[in-house]
Amino acid sequence: MSELRILGISGSLREGSYNRALLRAAAGLLPDGSRLETCEIREIPPFDQDLEASGDPPAVVELKARIRESHALLVVTPEYNWGVPGVLKNAIDWASRPPDQPFDGKPIAILGASPSAAGTARA
Amino acid sequence: MSELRILGISGSLREGSYNRALLRAAAGLLPDGSRLETCEIREIPPFDQDLEASGDPPAVVELKARIRESHALLVVTPEYNWGVPGVLKNAIDWASRPPDQPFDGKPIAILGASPSAAGTARA
Repeated sequence: MSELRILGISGSLREGSYNRALLRAAAGLLPDGSRLETCEIREIPPFDQDLEASGDPPAVVELKARIRESHALLVVTPEYNWGVPGVLKNAIDWASRPPDQPFDGKPIAILGASPSAAGTARA
Repeated sequence: MSELRILGISGSLREGSYNRALLRAAAGLLPDGSRLETCEIREIPPFDQDLEASGDPPAVVELKARIRESHALLVVTPEYNWGVPGVLKNAIDWASRPPDQPFDGKPIAILGASPSAAGTARA
């Protein structure tokens, strides 16, 4: 049986982020035969259809390729203003653009860590 | 009576955007005694608490000041993936950070233009 490859994405860019820590913890809990690698979204520019018209920027090309090569996604993210961070939404906006979006049929799990009582439920 | 100042923000960065056009159209329909100015969000960096710790970036300082000086906001935006664009959410994430967020008690209207049947209702 081939290895199960999971791509982990943190919705927080902060170096000492609780969500980054949670992503590392999740990676440490994987059973044999599975592997979790992470992809950074910091370099993905603000979505702009004019920019897209001249081709996906390198960070977007990489994100789409990494998603496509993975069997599943694990998104670990804080909640801001009743939703996912704009930074994460922007990465998804880019990656989900037709015609070659890589999400189809891909299982996605979402996790979050927060000091607040509601956690990150609204993300 | 003093002039009513409205700040218009486009959620689309595309130059020929339908939403930018709608924002311009709205500006042309204002009654006497009111004025609509726009604020660009392109230069606002991806939200990062580490970056915030060294002070708001100039584009964020400007956005917060422009919101604070306005009596109301008009957000004109497309819908991506059942929500507002990440670019717009990112700008709101920055501007809404305590302790001096400028949204309190500020009326906000949202408009959108889209070639799709559902319009931008889910934004």
